[in-house]
Amino acid sequence: MAVWGERLAGVRGVLLDISGVLFDSCEGGGVPIPGSVEAVARLKQSQLKVRFCTNESQKSRGKLVGLLQRLGFDISEGEVTSPAPAACQILKERGLRPHLLVHDDILSEFDKIDTSNPNCVLIADAGDAFSYKNMNKAFQVLMELENPVLISLGKGRYYKETLGLMLDVGAYMKALEYACGVEAEVVGKPSPEFFKNALQVLGVEAHQAIMIGDDIVGDVGGAQRCGMRALQVRTGKFRPSDEHHPEVKADGYVDNLAEAVDLLLQQVDK
Amino acid sequence: MAVWGERLAGVRGVLLDISGVLFDSCEGGGVPIPGSVEAVARLKQSQLKVRFCTNESQKSRGKLVGLLQRLGFDISEGEVTSPAPAACQILKERGLRPHLLVHDDILSEFDKIDTSNPNCVLIADAGDAFSYKNMNKAFQVLMELENPVLISLGKGRYYKETLGLMLDVGAYMKALEYACGVEAEVVGKPSPEFFKNALQVLGVEAHQAIMIGDDIVGDVGGAQRCGMRALQVRTGKFRPSDEHHPEVKADGYVDNLAEAVDLLLQQVDK
Repeated sequence: MAVWGERLAGVRGVLLDISGVLFDSCEGGGVPIPGSVEAVARLKQSQLKVRFCTNESQKSRGKLVGLLQRLGFDISEGEVTSPAPAACQILKERGLRPHLLVHDDILSEFDKIDTSNPNCVLIADAGDAFSYKNMNKAFQVLMELENPVLISLGKGRYYKETLGLMLDVGAYMKALEYACGVEAEVVGKPSPEFFKNALQVLGVEAHQAIMIGDDIVGDVGGAQRCGMRALQVRTGKFRPSDEHHPEVKADGYVDNLAEAVDLLLQQVDK
Repeated sequence: MAVWGERLAGVRGVLLDISGVLFDSCEGGGVPIPGSVEAVARLKQSQLKVRFCTNESQKSRGKLVGLLQRLGFDISEGEVTSPAPAACQILKERGLRPHLLVHDDILSEFDKIDTSNPNCVLIADAGDAFSYKNMNKAFQVLMELENPVLISLGKGRYYKETLGLMLDVGAYMKALEYACGVEAEVVGKPSPEFFKNALQVLGVEAHQAIMIGDDIVGDVGGAQRCGMRALQVRTGKFRPSDEHHPEVKADGYVDNLAEAVDLLLQQVDK
């Protein structure tokens, strides 16, 4: 067992990132990361509470869960914290009517949101919909607002598909921030509100919870700032330089989710 | 005459921005800003030295000058300082082979540049070529380099076409900087080297020169940091809030180039 394994003592709840931890996505589908289907099953059979905490904003929660189920994962929509539903709540509470720059596959999440006469811009991981024309339209909407509000579902730099690294929404958020002189409001990891909401649903305190993710900043750093512990997996977008990140140090690094679950269950069984 | 007109005393050379000062561009052409054709002619008939200093990076210098000539301007290619030729010189000096993310209309400027097996990325105002696919390719090239070098032709936030404000290369530069964790090298205004090169060709010292532009940061702030004076015109991308910019104060604000030339020639005639 890794020398740092004792840092896992007292964990009662586990937050799992999805992309890069459970599976690697690719156009039209995805491939499970070896051992992850079984690892999720073992976690859910244990006494640990489990919730999935993702920044996925290219697919609706329903489509994502459907894909994961087809890949063999034991997961249901109600177990997933994702940014689109959280954003819808914020939009309603603040009377915001978004101009949406999102992927078609997530539009259904905003079915009940008024998008007429927009007074803010909401962007998500839009993939090919991040065309110059669409970016320029979002830019123009922001420039015409007296108090421009830009909401971004996550601020990831990139994610990994089977074919390679792909630009994530954070890059386009930065482009609009710079062009318009605004600061975006991030809904999703690493926003503390997002983690806290997931913990609340899970029913555990931050100090009793651990986040497992492939993003050293968004997953590990964000969770630690909320008082949680966090492991980084060496799958997905992990890069060796992450283990020497200038600002964030994970409580542990594991080869994959299977190894993380092994270590967690050894602690629980003690 | 404006009370600040005396600040124009001793000017011997004038650097003129092009887009938003001489003309407003639109798809496939442009419209002269009223009075600008005559203003350029009057300047060139005076004893003042004149050079055009542009960040235009969507068209080659030849295409830009051809368009301006058709609009009635007295201008030749040799009178224009623009970023693509300056970038080519840097690429050759440093043995850099760029992956180009640029508009088709400027590709000819890079005819003599080796683009095989790229060891840097060069971006310009690519317009519709700023697709997700092309941005992702540039991102992937940078991520695969041990020492990623990103060169950006200008870092403008936006420019104005007849139909409205348009996102400029600076926004996409910020996107790649964030995604790759690099800092771009900017060739063009407000880079001091770029202004100094224009002044050298003009044969005047910075304190004898004035920049006239529509960009409070790129034109006015950049020129002032080089020891030049600078006027902002209230045409092109000018916005009323520019006159209360938190960091940059122009030596004067004029309604358009015609007014700037009136004031300059009054000082010369004294």
